[in-house]
Amino acid sequence: MNKPHFTFDCVGKCSHTHARAGVFHTPHGIVETPRFMPVGTTATVKTLTSAHIEDAGAQMVLSNTYHLHLRPGEDIIKEAGGLHKFMNWNKPMLTDSGGFQVFSLSKTRKITEEGVTFKSPLDGRTIFISPEKSIEIQNALGADVIMAFDECPPYPATRDEVIAATERTYRWLERCIQAHQRPEDQALFPIVQGGVHLDLRAQAAKSLQEFDLHGYAIGGVSVGEPSHFIHKIVRATAPLLPENKPRYLMGVGTYKEMAIAIASGIDLFDCVIPTRVARHGAAFVRGERWNLKNAPFKRDFTPLDDTCPCYTCQNFTRAYLCHLVRCGEITGFTLLSLHNITELIRFTQQIRNAILRDRFVEEFGHWLTSEDPESSEESQH
Amino acid sequence: MNKPHFTFDCVGKCSHTHARAGVFHTPHGIVETPRFMPVGTTATVKTLTSAHIEDAGAQMVLSNTYHLHLRPGEDIIKEAGGLHKFMNWNKPMLTDSGGFQVFSLSKTRKITEEGVTFKSPLDGRTIFISPEKSIEIQNALGADVIMAFDECPPYPATRDEVIAATERTYRWLERCIQAHQRPEDQALFPIVQGGVHLDLRAQAAKSLQEFDLHGYAIGGVSVGEPSHFIHKIVRATAPLLPENKPRYLMGVGTYKEMAIAIASGIDLFDCVIPTRVARHGAAFVRGERWNLKNAPFKRDFTPLDDTCPCYTCQNFTRAYLCHLVRCGEITGFTLLSLHNITELIRFTQQIRNAILRDRFVEEFGHWLTSEDPESSEESQH
Ligand SMILES: [Zn+2]
Ligand SMILES: [Zn+2]
Repeated sequence: MNKPHFTFDCVGKCSHTHARAGVFHTPHGIVETPRFMPVGTTATVKTLTSAHIEDAGAQMVLSNTYHLHLRPGEDIIKEAGGLHKFMNWNKPMLTDSGGFQVFSLSKTRKITEEGVTFKSPLDGRTIFISPEKSIEIQNALGADVIMAFDECPPYPATRDEVIAATERTYRWLERCIQAHQRPEDQALFPIVQGGVHLDLRAQAAKSLQEFDLHGYAIGGVSVGEPSHFIHKIVRATAPLLPENKPRYLMGVGTYKEMAIAIASGIDLFDCVIPTRVARHGAAFVRGERWNLKNAPFKRDFTPLDDTCPCYTCQNFTRAYLCHLVRCGEITGFTLLSLHNITELIRFTQQIRNAILRDRFVEEFGHWLTSEDPESSEESQH
Repeated sequence: MNKPHFTFDCVGKCSHTHARAGVFHTPHGIVETPRFMPVGTTATVKTLTSAHIEDAGAQMVLSNTYHLHLRPGEDIIKEAGGLHKFMNWNKPMLTDSGGFQVFSLSKTRKITEEGVTFKSPLDGRTIFISPEKSIEIQNALGADVIMAFDECPPYPATRDEVIAATERTYRWLERCIQAHQRPEDQALFPIVQGGVHLDLRAQAAKSLQEFDLHGYAIGGVSVGEPSHFIHKIVRATAPLLPENKPRYLMGVGTYKEMAIAIASGIDLFDCVIPTRVARHGAAFVRGERWNLKNAPFKRDFTPLDDTCPCYTCQNFTRAYLCHLVRCGEITGFTLLSLHNITELIRFTQQIRNAILRDRFVEEFGHWLTSEDPESSEESQH
């Protein structure tokens, strides 16, 4: 049954936490939430083909505006018929706004109210990205969900710097909405900033709701702050976002952080960790991170995870993966990336199933405690 | 219908050349010849999974004794249940003897009648490989076809050096046969050496037939000599090998060299070129080598080769491949490797089909002329 684009149906709720199971409808199909989204930075999830991504159970894939603008350029992707066609992915897609990369990757940037000027790390040419430009690029790329161009303050930053960035993010959102040419088939999500200051987060969450948009993101986390800050920010902010819209926690995708965020009502996640650790020879298995180079794996002729349905686990042993990783063979990184993405997607799927049975806390409660000194104090009271 | 292991049936002959179509029966299934074999040096074809290799149409896959002995060691592969199980490839396999690598890759080697001593490039430990040791390793790996441990003279070399290496190869073959513990399920192929000296090649081809083995290889070509020498060696040597056994030209796998060798009666080929050029961003398309980095491909939204059935050509454009290659994305190298291997296998399959219709010269004759000054002189007489 086709619902109007960008409808979000809540189909299950946890009775003990804010966790919910949802269905988000996009022009390229549904996303069942909570769901981990693999990251295809340059229109490819590193070391994998789009067939692999589909096999991994991906529904929505993220790609990066900043990288695609630099190479190959959005004009080429538009000529190709859009990002979906270009990379042969016919399911939902999301593009970030480039904001995070402009602020974190560019050394020689200059920020003004108008936008950000920086030098291309590829050829040194000067590039200017404004809210209008970011949306123009994202309109050309054609993802189902596009993100507002925001100013992400670094960590640490002074409270005044965070206030300034948060207020600018609000003004830039107005310009993004004005510039957006494809509101019918591209949902624009605004981004809640506010650093580690919960009052600024709450203020931003409230003010961004003046605009009736199809979903809301929490940005500026996982930028170097201790993980209990992430938990605090998410716990305080997520419940302030509209109930009937998907909530996306940007750049987070580890077991624990996802579980805690889901308990706070987050629906969508993305992270480069599963492919990055794969390229270091590591795998996520049953909540742990294993280094496949380790000697005990040399003669371990069992699958990586015999409960995992992925191609890697169904066809190869830990000994073989250990061998490939020790040889530096790309095939090893491919097989581990495929498993890691499958594993994180499966983790969110399993949580979803638990929510639908209202067994989230029973089955995933062990993930929900912070190692935060304050919160452990609280739990003693 | 199961034939006895290692039967070679000639099912078609060209009426103008020595080309033939055959079926080689192995414990892990048949190989339809002529056929290109992809190389899985360290028990993986670089950048590809075994599912990719199967999709590419591979029947027999080659792996390297030298590399597997160094890492992970044949004991681990034997414990895994053999090379087929270790790398999840349930079709025919061939291992080389390590001879070529010992002579070409090791800097500090010492050759005696007993064998070759060299230092491991991985950890510097001293390794000794003799004919007996090579066969012992290959018996542990368990490929369907194993190769005799030979001495491959370099190019250039003096006639006396080539004679010494060829004679030693003969003596070492006797020891390989003696050492071979699994003659029922592993066919041992001897290797014809003789450098660029056609009389030495003829002598070797004859003397090796004193042993009634299941197939014969021509080695020591493509070691630096001009390509018209390869053509000459193959044209002179292949027809001297038994009609009723498969003939394998080692280390050769370009369009022209394969076509000329097939015309001389060669059945099997292997080469690392298709994956190596892929990692340089190049593709084999319709007999040519294309560099996908080239600017015209940036906006070429057609498949690499619209006649190719491979996953790459069925799902992606040249523009996308160009983008991936320019970004240095591994996925690009994977997609090009998959195409290149498919293409070279398909080339040998197409030749096989032409032979079966006795149309080999009509359809592939344009590949059969050498650029050799002597042979063009001949053709003028
Ligand atoms: Zn798996
Ligand atoms: Zn192809």
